[in-house]
Amino acid sequence: MLSSESILQNFPILDRKINGHPLVYLDNAATTQKPLQVLYASRHYYEAINSNIHRGTHFLARLATEAFEQARQTVASHLNADSSDEVIFTSGTTDAINLVSSVLTLSGQIGKGDEILISTLEHHSNIVPWQMLCVRTGAELKVIPCDENGVLDQHAFHELLSNRTKVLALGWVSNAFGTVNPVREMTAAAKKAGALVLIDAAQAAPHLKMDVQSLGADFLAFSGHKVYAPTGIGVLWGRRKVLEDLPPWRGGGEMIKEVTFDKTTYNDLPFKYEAGTPNIEGAIALASALDFVNAIGLDEIYSHENELIEAAADALSDIEGVRLYGPDDRAGALSFAIEGVHHYDLGTLIDQMGVAVRTGHHCCQPLMSRFGITGTTRASFALYNTLESVAALAAAVAKASKMLR
Amino acid sequence: MLSSESILQNFPILDRKINGHPLVYLDNAATTQKPLQVLYASRHYYEAINSNIHRGTHFLARLATEAFEQARQTVASHLNADSSDEVIFTSGTTDAINLVSSVLTLSGQIGKGDEILISTLEHHSNIVPWQMLCVRTGAELKVIPCDENGVLDQHAFHELLSNRTKVLALGWVSNAFGTVNPVREMTAAAKKAGALVLIDAAQAAPHLKMDVQSLGADFLAFSGHKVYAPTGIGVLWGRRKVLEDLPPWRGGGEMIKEVTFDKTTYNDLPFKYEAGTPNIEGAIALASALDFVNAIGLDEIYSHENELIEAAADALSDIEGVRLYGPDDRAGALSFAIEGVHHYDLGTLIDQMGVAVRTGHHCCQPLMSRFGITGTTRASFALYNTLESVAALAAAVAKASKMLR
Repeated sequence: MLSSESILQNFPILDRKINGHPLVYLDNAATTQKPLQVLYASRHYYEAINSNIHRGTHFLARLATEAFEQARQTVASHLNADSSDEVIFTSGTTDAINLVSSVLTLSGQIGKGDEILISTLEHHSNIVPWQMLCVRTGAELKVIPCDENGVLDQHAFHELLSNRTKVLALGWVSNAFGTVNPVREMTAAAKKAGALVLIDAAQAAPHLKMDVQSLGADFLAFSGHKVYAPTGIGVLWGRRKVLEDLPPWRGGGEMIKEVTFDKTTYNDLPFKYEAGTPNIEGAIALASALDFVNAIGLDEIYSHENELIEAAADALSDIEGVRLYGPDDRAGALSFAIEGVHHYDLGTLIDQMGVAVRTGHHCCQPLMSRFGITGTTRASFALYNTLESVAALAAAVAKASKMLR
Repeated sequence: MLSSESILQNFPILDRKINGHPLVYLDNAATTQKPLQVLYASRHYYEAINSNIHRGTHFLARLATEAFEQARQTVASHLNADSSDEVIFTSGTTDAINLVSSVLTLSGQIGKGDEILISTLEHHSNIVPWQMLCVRTGAELKVIPCDENGVLDQHAFHELLSNRTKVLALGWVSNAFGTVNPVREMTAAAKKAGALVLIDAAQAAPHLKMDVQSLGADFLAFSGHKVYAPTGIGVLWGRRKVLEDLPPWRGGGEMIKEVTFDKTTYNDLPFKYEAGTPNIEGAIALASALDFVNAIGLDEIYSHENELIEAAADALSDIEGVRLYGPDDRAGALSFAIEGVHHYDLGTLIDQMGVAVRTGHHCCQPLMSRFGITGTTRASFALYNTLESVAALAAAVAKASKMLR
């Protein structure tokens, strides 16, 4: 396990008391807390080098440009991207997925008779953009079902895959159940069928190594704020050849080569997809967060969190009436319910004991419908959680369960 | 004039030395520096209340939601909006304008025979999105010309306005020349002709009071980072009735009411246009920046900056070969050139003397073409600049001019 002392020093918010109890923050799949080095990176940017980038001849503009482009390099290395030109800064995963679905809509490549394949496990942000694309292009949305354990049905996936499949848009890790999908194998099958593949890595980024070259997909999206960086920054990685052939999305400064009122020509990658002043501070802070994660090591983080999730699954299973959702192997998130108890009541009650979890549909209404429920209670883990967090969760749930049943 | 001592204490970056000289930061139209209270607001958010918003039952989620929605209220008050439901958080002005141009495209309200009216003074971010709309809808882009002083030709404007005009998209203040357009009168005329009106207030926000009710437009966009707030946050204000009738843009979490694989229904304003986790920290820091500005007073800021611009215009005019661009009444920005000297060389040389200005086309290539130039040197002012900044600028330009001519 990771040493909690040295890590906790980096997260002053975790010292908070909530309703008289120490904060047990288990809502990490919603957003993570930020280490001091990330806060320092933002602060240093504003106290020492803040300037707009790319178009400036002065000293600060050069420093800020270098820091921003160095951040892009850090992201590219983190993803093992072929080139930093393939790294587009966005405002988050949702923005990144909408970018892809919008430019595919605009490209004219997708039309009636074509199909977009997603899964039952998807977050709304990997459903709604594709529904919009279908409405606008006439394509049809197809959905890979999951079994009772929240595991995708691979047989059904292969049945659904055909030469009509133009896009497979797949979450790597389910934010609701923690299911880790076999993205490498599914990507290979979809590519073989001729589809473009987008991986929603929002929930993978904090827990798993992401190597876009070995993954083989065409697009990968993640958010900074779920991997210890601030809100308002995210990444779309896209395969160069694919991005080059697609039209631009947002228009404005930075993404143009030349503007006349008659005709505008567009910039090369990555700037083609970065209209306007980007979140400069956010990109620099994201790079700092990735440095923080890599200094600890994603394998170590995964193994630490896995121990916590298994301990939590064991402890919760011992409580009468608890049902766990999802497979035995989970990343990050553990969803559960107590028979006869509403998730909202449970969440509210354990919050009184300082335990912060998320309750509800987790932006996965279709998945909840599949299980005939309106929501679950979800504990989700980060590198700073400990076995004490798990014990506090289990004790609070046990106590609440007694009060509510 | 504003007292510089008390203000400068809030901006530690301004103590920097650049190439051995005190930093004279006159690139404020590109981005402003941030006062400590804004940096503290971000830091406090992460050290005390960071959580994802709106969907959480736990204590931190409620605190973060309250702070985010309070920030929306602050923006609404600052704009004198009828309701905070009309305040949409975006990643910046460019994102906001693209939101409007995209949903107008998708609405089907605009087609062949319709016209979009912009002006020669526009920034690329208020040109390119409308060019894209025109390509996609078959509408035609019309352009209000300006005179030799960079002032819009009101006669031509009224000639161009007709019942074919579906949108007037107009910058309030020119980022290149500092021209302040008569937005109230032009909005009234365009509304009378039946057009929707969008005001690009990116360069107005740091200098002028913005009252959307008295302005009479349908949309107003501005960026946080140009008004002492961080990058990655901006605002689209939109008239409720207009926004309600337009389709959504980005799809994802937060902007939905209910998602099924068959059909998705969308949320009410403002959430309908805020898909995904927003820039929570950014919104809170923006509110803090607006509080900072309002504590000083926009009238006082404008008057202070105006004194600086007039002093700079006078001092630069005394230098041989200097040509000033734009009208005598400017807000924020002062553009100039020296006969026979390339703006890039000038900017590079005065940077050696610690003076940070912007050189080039300022994302206004069509305006530069109108004047038969590739760019200008632009000094742009903020509340922390002083008469000493102006003297340093003039001395550096005079010295550089002697060396370069």
